[in-house]
Amino acid sequence: MAATRFDVLGIGNAIVDVIARTDDAFLAKQKMRKGTMRLIDEAQAAGLYDAMGPAVEVSGGSAANTIVGAASLGARAAFIGKVKDDELGRVFAHDIRAAGVAFATPPASAGPSTARCYVLVTPDGERTMNTYLGAAQDLHPNDIDPDAIAAAQIIYLEGYLWDPPHAKEAFLKAAKIAHDADRDVALTLSDAFCVDRYRAEFLDLIRAGTIDLVFANERELHSLYETADFDTALDALRKDARLAVITRSERGCLIFESCENALASGPGSGLTVARRQTSGVGKTPRRSGIRASRL
Amino acid sequence: MAATRFDVLGIGNAIVDVIARTDDAFLAKQKMRKGTMRLIDEAQAAGLYDAMGPAVEVSGGSAANTIVGAASLGARAAFIGKVKDDELGRVFAHDIRAAGVAFATPPASAGPSTARCYVLVTPDGERTMNTYLGAAQDLHPNDIDPDAIAAAQIIYLEGYLWDPPHAKEAFLKAAKIAHDADRDVALTLSDAFCVDRYRAEFLDLIRAGTIDLVFANERELHSLYETADFDTALDALRKDARLAVITRSERGCLIFESCENALASGPGSGLTVARRQTSGVGKTPRRSGIRASRL
Repeated sequence: MAATRFDVLGIGNAIVDVIARTDDAFLAKQKMRKGTMRLIDEAQAAGLYDAMGPAVEVSGGSAANTIVGAASLGARAAFIGKVKDDELGRVFAHDIRAAGVAFATPPASAGPSTARCYVLVTPDGERTMNTYLGAAQDLHPNDIDPDAIAAAQIIYLEGYLWDPPHAKEAFLKAAKIAHDADRDVALTLSDAFCVDRYRAEFLDLIRAGTIDLVFANERELHSLYETADFDTALDALRKDARLAVITRSERGCLIFESCENALASGPGSGLTVARRQTSGVGKTPRRSGIRASRL
Repeated sequence: MAATRFDVLGIGNAIVDVIARTDDAFLAKQKMRKGTMRLIDEAQAAGLYDAMGPAVEVSGGSAANTIVGAASLGARAAFIGKVKDDELGRVFAHDIRAAGVAFATPPASAGPSTARCYVLVTPDGERTMNTYLGAAQDLHPNDIDPDAIAAAQIIYLEGYLWDPPHAKEAFLKAAKIAHDADRDVALTLSDAFCVDRYRAEFLDLIRAGTIDLVFANERELHSLYETADFDTALDALRKDARLAVITRSERGCLIFESCENALASGPGSGLTVARRQTSGVGKTPRRSGIRASRL
């Protein structure tokens, strides 16, 4: 195997979060379901922004946040995602690079503006997210840099990538390059509603071996196998997935490798397994209690 | 006197803060003086942004922050300041309106982008500020809405307005309209270096009665009268100013009205004077221990 330049390379929606405090009445009035993410179009984004309170802007995005977390732990990290050549796009590019992550995806010069996620935080600490995908929808296969992919030990993708129309082609291209270079491909299922939208495709990817490593929380796992029983869902995933990490909030996380594939001593198995109490927020390697020994 | 629509109307630089953590070594390398504000041009802004860490964007500006504070205390508040019609300009406009402040200054359609202040926060909590004035420099006298000024009990201006070339003309126009409508005009001296840049002009404004109410901290007061002795500076201000509020960090604040003007029972004197311990941060009415009884 050739030498790596990156321990991990993420591909995801490049998003700037617009975070404001709110209350339950506002969520009800806006017909939002607390604690979930929904997609909104440009007109909805404008209407919501008008209605919501003063906000703070922070670079976000599910996989991007995870990659920044990995970089903060010392990993050599890279990210691929699409912004527009506008002010928020420059904010995103600055922030991820300033965090030590290589980010070279060319920004879109035309089309919709950089993606924004309007995050409404209620007094109970729950985050309710409304995502305008904007320029993130324009992530195309030609944004996938084959050299960067082949130089990364693991590529890490978010389930949310299935929302923008061309991103899944970009993802499949990246997965093929990675496997041809003997690298591993990881997928986080993102959220239970995302799994609901793309269940069949995610299962196909996992069963076909396009995905080597699956990250999921309990709700996503239940959604994937359409069951309310954890053990049933877990047994199903054990049959389908080569390697999986299930985060369980206060119950820590569960990690397994498929017996059939018997990869305990093979490539990609260099993971230190640990159970820890987690805060149940986010999916960075630190929080989910897994840390790649090669990072 | 006609009825008011606003308890207070601020005029100031409309700025989005770009806030990042840093350390003393970074400040030294960038030749910054800790705890102060300096003006930077577009090239310096670009260089600094490249060098600094991941940041958070929050609407800011000295007078704008004060006006938002007044609105949060229940005041009917308005603000005049110049942004560009760009993303950060829309962020500023959203945030100040969402805080309940009337903001109707038309954004610039061309020229430099919305002003940004790069705020570097060291572990000791000190803020070191680098301001790129951008579109704020294009605040012109024709941005002053005479009806809004005449309908505000007090207009509140920041000393930093003397930095953009045309803003002082806008300020003088607003002060004349306010006085013709029998309203009061307040000025905050902003910072000791700002006073250093415009000492003669500030003294002229105060002595000529263009300013009815002066806000200053001790350092600004010392700078105004070029003395290290507080009592000497205070005596000088007592002679010059009609009404003044001096904030003194842990020693609370000092408020006086000029005896010569004998305005204790005249218009504009409806202020409840109080001495309180303050946190020494910011200059909102709450923190400085003064609260207009008509608010």
